[in-house]
This record gives sequence, structure tokens and C-alpha cells, in this order.
Amino acid sequence: MSKKNKKNKPQRTKARRPRGFEDKSADILRAETALVAAAFSVYDRYGFEPLQTPAFEYADVLGKFLPDDDRPNVGVFALQDDDEQWMALRYDHTAPLARYVAENYEALPKPYRRYQAGSVWRNEKPGPGRFREFIQCDADSVGAPGAAADAEMIMLAADVMEAAGVKTGQYVIRINNRKLLDGILESSGVPNTEAGAAQRLQVLRAIDKLDRLGEGGVADLLGAGRKDDSGDFTGGANLDVGGIKAVLGFTTASHNDRAKTLTTLENLMGNSERGQAGVIELKLIDGILEACGYSGEKALFDTSIVRGLGYYTGPVFEAELLADIKGKKGRPVRIGSVGGGGRYDDLVSRFRGQAVPATGYSFGVSRFANALSRMGLIEQKEKPPVIICVFDKSLMPEYFKMCAELREAGIRAEVFIGAGNMAKQLKYADIRGAKLAVLMGSDEMQRGEVTIKDLELGSEMAKAIEDNKEWRESRPAQSTTKRDQFVQTIQNMLR
Amino acid sequence: MSKKNKKNKPQRTKARRPRGFEDKSADILRAETALVAAAFSVYDRYGFEPLQTPAFEYADVLGKFLPDDDRPNVGVFALQDDDEQWMALRYDHTAPLARYVAENYEALPKPYRRYQAGSVWRNEKPGPGRFREFIQCDADSVGAPGAAADAEMIMLAADVMEAAGVKTGQYVIRINNRKLLDGILESSGVPNTEAGAAQRLQVLRAIDKLDRLGEGGVADLLGAGRKDDSGDFTGGANLDVGGIKAVLGFTTASHNDRAKTLTTLENLMGNSERGQAGVIELKLIDGILEACGYSGEKALFDTSIVRGLGYYTGPVFEAELLADIKGKKGRPVRIGSVGGGGRYDDLVSRFRGQAVPATGYSFGVSRFANALSRMGLIEQKEKPPVIICVFDKSLMPEYFKMCAELREAGIRAEVFIGAGNMAKQLKYADIRGAKLAVLMGSDEMQRGEVTIKDLELGSEMAKAIEDNKEWRESRPAQSTTKRDQFVQTIQNMLR
Repeated sequence: MSKKNKKNKPQRTKARRPRGFEDKSADILRAETALVAAAFSVYDRYGFEPLQTPAFEYADVLGKFLPDDDRPNVGVFALQDDDEQWMALRYDHTAPLARYVAENYEALPKPYRRYQAGSVWRNEKPGPGRFREFIQCDADSVGAPGAAADAEMIMLAADVMEAAGVKTGQYVIRINNRKLLDGILESSGVPNTEAGAAQRLQVLRAIDKLDRLGEGGVADLLGAGRKDDSGDFTGGANLDVGGIKAVLGFTTASHNDRAKTLTTLENLMGNSERGQAGVIELKLIDGILEACGYSGEKALFDTSIVRGLGYYTGPVFEAELLADIKGKKGRPVRIGSVGGGGRYDDLVSRFRGQAVPATGYSFGVSRFANALSRMGLIEQKEKPPVIICVFDKSLMPEYFKMCAELREAGIRAEVFIGAGNMAKQLKYADIRGAKLAVLMGSDEMQRGEVTIKDLELGSEMAKAIEDNKEWRESRPAQSTTKRDQFVQTIQNMLR
Repeated sequence: MSKKNKKNKPQRTKARRPRGFEDKSADILRAETALVAAAFSVYDRYGFEPLQTPAFEYADVLGKFLPDDDRPNVGVFALQDDDEQWMALRYDHTAPLARYVAENYEALPKPYRRYQAGSVWRNEKPGPGRFREFIQCDADSVGAPGAAADAEMIMLAADVMEAAGVKTGQYVIRINNRKLLDGILESSGVPNTEAGAAQRLQVLRAIDKLDRLGEGGVADLLGAGRKDDSGDFTGGANLDVGGIKAVLGFTTASHNDRAKTLTTLENLMGNSERGQAGVIELKLIDGILEACGYSGEKALFDTSIVRGLGYYTGPVFEAELLADIKGKKGRPVRIGSVGGGGRYDDLVSRFRGQAVPATGYSFGVSRFANALSRMGLIEQKEKPPVIICVFDKSLMPEYFKMCAELREAGIRAEVFIGAGNMAKQLKYADIRGAKLAVLMGSDEMQRGEVTIKDLELGSEMAKAIEDNKEWRESRPAQSTTKRDQFVQTIQNMLR
């Protein structure tokens, strides 16, 4: 019998979300939309044009430029198409851009300057704050060989900060140059060729962990490797003691002053050709930043910034938010990086065999918006709607007419279209955070009157009045207005 | 030897896009972004809140509500997660919404009113204008049982049209009710139960082809089936002659006047309980539309509109654009449907076992924007940038300072950061559609002067002047201004 019951019970699908994916609700979405719009307005003013590539690319087109992962087809969401070719969801906007430029090379203006925002997907182990789908917002200049193009990207990153409401002093753009590190490594026996590529990448990833592991941990990773607290071993870059010292010395060489850092670096690079080329590029960048008024308060040279990605070939930078809370020495403390970018001269050449130098900036929309929220810089502009309660269903046309009048006057409003009595309707208004509810029965309608309930005021008064009966009878925070004046009355009450 | 050469040639990845996916360029994207923003502003004013669900859902959660396809896992892009559960990319925003509401039922306000725009994916055979990824923009009220909620969706659809720049008379919302057809079919022996579901769906799909096949073809599909010109046979709904006549009679019963159609339908439904319930709902809708000023010019009852989806349970509607070109009788001709919606009361109950009545509106962003473009209703607001040419690389900081001044004044501008001589730079300005180019060498800089070239004027004059030498020497359409006045001069020239 119990078996029979079980059989008769309909098998229901369980409503659930795949791991590592999130639903985004109103406040977050409005903040993210405003942030992207602010960035787009900067990109437009800079002369960039929007582009949207599809979610899918052929897996071989995406290539092996996965962050922190050299294995192709791992880390992406891939499936086989009807014709058995492997397609994968994009994991960033740079690889699809390289494909787009290579595919449309002849028709595109050179340089080609585009921006794009949209979801990217990473098939990785999800964790707290670590999602498998998130939105990135990018701007890139492709076919732009000089450091001036990198300087522009840095100014663009600063301008996006300010357009998002972050003031000078609340952020800093930290700039480095891969060529400097290449120079240091060359002097330490790591050749600046394809042969040294894997070792260079390991050095980059080691430096990228300075914040988390400190100099000791990074020194291990630069050398033979490191065993962490759990006993897991991570292989090292196998630099010798001199190399480790040179790299660590380099990462701590920068000062809080661009000119001073340039002098230090010029000395540090000695007779390394590549190192000196890197210094010259930074000097060019400094000249442009100075001319355009981007002082050290906005952008600094910082040799500890390397960016984890293997494909960068020149200047790299990170956009970092500083909290308003002051740390030691009265300086604002770091919230952390919300975006970054740099020069990647070899991505398009994968397809064309000819160098197509490029530079770009990318930020994580959720991460940036979340940081803005922590800094109290997000202003919710959309107010909750005015709720028109339904006393009498036969008056629906009149309720909707009143609602249309409010909307016409630019007031957010809705008629209650759910199921339920007045208590449920007022509860709905409360959940929506509505300040005002409009009530009108047929008697009132006959008299040409409308009652407006101030829910915020009512809630405050309810706390003050102890006697529930008195409360109900006195009908506080409720006022009656003429039907033909109710829009005006509501406008005044919302002010 | 030839073999060896082949071996040495580097194997390059071919830059190509998977079939059925598109890259969207600037003009289209700007139009789509403006359209979505216009729709969102209407949704906000109506009291809806934004929601964004992830691209992936579990395949069983998406269910079998694929348009024109009852087979699960066919028509979607699906892959297995690490835990072997099947995930699929969403094919619309309605199924994920149903999952979201069921998963968060207790915490959500009731009704729950949300909007969402984003890509949806269909793993179908691509064709001209038929893509495997496209953007849909939806608004839905969940937990809203009455026809008033449907009336609101219809008004919302009309308001989105107007917000997008479409004037009254250039569009019409066509409204029908599934209950009417259910009533007709019941009288023709198709029971209004699960048993008749498959047959009802075939009837809907047959009617949906009225535009394309005409009454004869639809009559075949309502009966035994139809063989098309290529000899392919499509099975029919197997109605008898009386049933076919009744259905075709119903689909042509509406008039160009809502009140008149209501009277006709009331008579046509006879003693069908379900049919009469449908008429009462349409009357309610009519009352609200009338009260709010949505006349027959904006919204009509049209019994030929059925919507192809199986899940609709009550009022359905389509938003149709009418071209400005006049057809016979001087009436504007159809461009076609750009969106639609209706009532679906059973989608959430799949998860909860309790009825959660809902209604919504959805439009295809690309399709709508494309139609607006055909109607000449898209205005490109973003002008091409002013191009600052690079005469002398050592002046880069000064060029960028000038560029910053222009951007500060709200003028879109960029320094040429590509590679190439003056001819290439002017060619770039031309490809970008720039009206003005700024030229300054070191001599001019010393004199505090800047040259501004009017490329549009220059191009016109070039056509008029035949002698190429004379043309070059006279330097037409070129003027010199003071460095400290150049922003003002450019502002004037752009006006």
C-alpha cells in the first residue's frame, strides 16, 4: 500500500542551480549595469567601438592561453558540434578578439579599437566568491605597437575608476613591464626565447603570490619548490640563489614616486638590452601620464605587479581600489585589484603568422561592483513602486487608470495583481519596500476620493503606539485626497 | 623536398567562427543596447525588478518546453558536469525563471515581477537570419492569477514599442485567448485534458502557419496531414471536417474593432464553459485597455494569433510592427511579429506541485532592432572620433594632452596609435568616418598653432577639383588655429 502511494505521487523535478553559478538580484544587477554603462561612456569618448562575439568559439581557436592552466580543453566548457568539431564557451574576451581580428583583418581599421562586456565561463572548482560564470568588461587596441598605446590604456583604467564614482586617492593604477623581468631573468640564465617560456611563466606565478605567501614562500617557488601547510608540494622555477635574489630584489625595487623608480630601474637593468628597452617604454608612459595630469596619486610604477597570464609581452598594469579606511601611516589600505591589462603582441600572430601588436584593459564587473558597494559608492537610484491596492475587483480598470497616471508622471507604480486580501496586499507593499500604498473602494470612488497610506511613517508610528486597538482605530499615517489631485499629492509625499 | 618544406611551415590555427554564431559590430550593438535600455526603463516604471539567472541550468530543470520540439536534450547545448549531471544552456528566460521562483518561493514577494535580458541558445540548424545564440528580453509577473495581469503585459508591450521610438499606428498588439480555441476544440471532440494535449499542440502549430500556408494548407494540417512541394509529409491533427471548419472559422472571426469581436466570440463560443471563460477574460482586458487609453489602434483581438509554445494556458498576444509603407486600402503593411507573450499557469507547478499562475512578455532584441532599422527609426548618436595625427613621435605627450582636452570637453577623440605615415593615418581617419583630423608638427607647436583638416569638406572638394596638383597645393578644407583655442574651434566645426 505504501508502495502504491509512492507510485501515485507525481515525480517532481527539484528546482536547483548547477554548482558555481549564481542568480543575481536587483540591487547587484543595477549596480553592475551602472558600472558597465560608466565604463562604456569612457570607452566611447576614447574612440573605441563596441563589439560582441558569440559565447562559443572553436576550442583550437581559444588556444591554450587559459589563466593558470596550460592544458587545452581543461578549464573550459566544451562540447562537440554536429560536425564533430570541438566548441568551447569563451573564458575571456581576448582570445575571441584575436580570432575576430584575424578573421576580418583586411576590412578592419588599423588600429582596431573595440570594447566588449559579457559573461565568460571557467570550468573550475567553484568556491566562495569563485563562480564558473562571471562578467568581464574589456577595451583593447589591436595593431598598436608603441608604449603610447599602453599609456592610453592606463589612463583609460583611471578614467573608468573616476566614472564609476571612485575619487583620486581611492584607487591607484600599478604599472610594470614584462621586459624588465625578462632582463633580470636573462642575466640569471633564463633565455628570453621559447625555450625559457615555461620557466618564465613559473617565475611570474611565483611573484603573483607575493601578497599571499610573502618573500619566503615566493623564494621557495622561485627555487626548488614549496610544500604548503597541508603537505602539498608545488614545483619551483629552479632559479639559483643569485637568480632568486635578483628577482626578489627587482620586485621590491619600486618607490612611491615614478621618476625615482625609473632611475632605480635604469641602474638595476645594467647592460640588459631587453631590460633597458623596458625602462624606455616606462619613460614614454611616464611622459604621457605627466602631460595629461595623471600624477603618482593615480598611477605608479610597481615592480611587484606581474599579472598571472602567460601572453603578456610588455607593459602590464593593475587597477587597485584603496579603501577609505586609513591604515598605518594614515594611508588608505588596499581593497585589492579589480582589473588589469597590458601588452600582448603575439596573440593574433597565432592565426596570421605576422605580428599584430596589441594592448588592453579588462575588469571583473561583479568584483568591481562588489568593491564599490563595500566602499559605500553605490547609490540605488530606483525607488520602490507605489502600490495601488485592490479593494474591489470590479474597479480594476480604474485602478490601472490611476496607475497609468502615476507612471505617466514618471512615478514607479503598480496595481496589486496577486491573490490576497488587504493584509496580504499591505504585506506585499512592505516586502517591496514601498513608501506609499493607494486605497480606494467604490464609496470613495463615488465621492471622488482616494486614500494614501504612508507605510514608512505608519511603521514608525506603530512602534510608538502600544495599544493595538487604538492604533487601528486612529488610522495613523493615512490621508485622503481628491481623485483629480492624487498624482500631485503622491508626488509631494515622495519628495 | 616539398615534403620537408611543408613540415617546416608552421601549422597555423584557422581563425573561424562556429556555424550559426555571429559577431555583432558597433552600429547593431548600439541599436540593441538602446532598445534594451528603453525596455528596461518601461519595466522599471511598471515596478518590475531586474534578475539575471546563469547561462547553465540542469537539463531536467529546463524540461521539455522547447519551442516546436518535444524531445528533451534535443535542441539545446548540453554537457555533463563533473558529477555526471547534465547541464544545458538556457533556450529561453521562462524556464530558468520558473526554476528561480520555485527555488526561492518563500522569500520572494508575491506576485514576483522581474525582467531579464540576455543570450539564449538553440542547438538547431542555422540558416539566414537564424542564429544559434540570440538575445531575448523578458518581463514576467509570477503569482498573478487574473486577466488584469495579462492586460498589464499587453500595455507594457505597447509602451516598449513607444519607448523604442515606434509611434501609435506603426505597431499593433494582437491578442487572443487559448481558452477560446480550447472551447472550439472541445466542441470538436478534443478533450481539454492531458489526453488532448498533443492534438491541441498540433492544432496550434497548424494555425501558426496561416501566414505561410494559407487556409488550404492549414486545413490539411488540421486534418490528415500535408505533403509539401518537396514531397515531405507532415502529420496532421486528425480533426474531422466539422472540426476543421470550426477551427478555421474561429481563426477568421475577429474584426478590426475590439467590442465587435467580443460580441462575435460570445456567440461563437455557445455553451462551451471554457470558451465563455475566455471571452470574460478578454472583456476584462478590454475594460482595462479602454480605461488606460489603449485603443484599437494600439491593441486588437485577433483570433489568428495562437503562439507556437505548448505551455500557454490563457490570454496570448503578439507585438507586431507595421511598416510606414502603405499597403492596399492605405493601411500600413505588416513587418511582422517582434515579440509576444501570454499566460502560463503550469510552469512553476512542475517543481512545487501547486499552481503558480504567471504571465509574461518577451521580445527578440536583434529581430526588433533590425526591424527598427528597416523602419528608419534608429538614430546613431555616437559620432566618429576626432583623429589627432602623429607627425612627430617625440610630441606624443603633447598629442595626448590635446586629446585629453578634447575628451574633457565631451568630444570623442583619439591619438593615432597605429603604425604608419601620414597617408595611412588619414586613411584610418577616413575608415573611421572621422569628420576632423588634427595635425601639428614641432614647428607649429613652437608657434603655438594647430592645423585642423575637415575631411568631409575635403572629400567633397576633391571631387570638384580636377587638377590633382592644384588640389594638393591649395590645401583646401584645412585651417590653422591657435593651440589655446583649438578645442573651441573643433567644437564649432563639429556643430
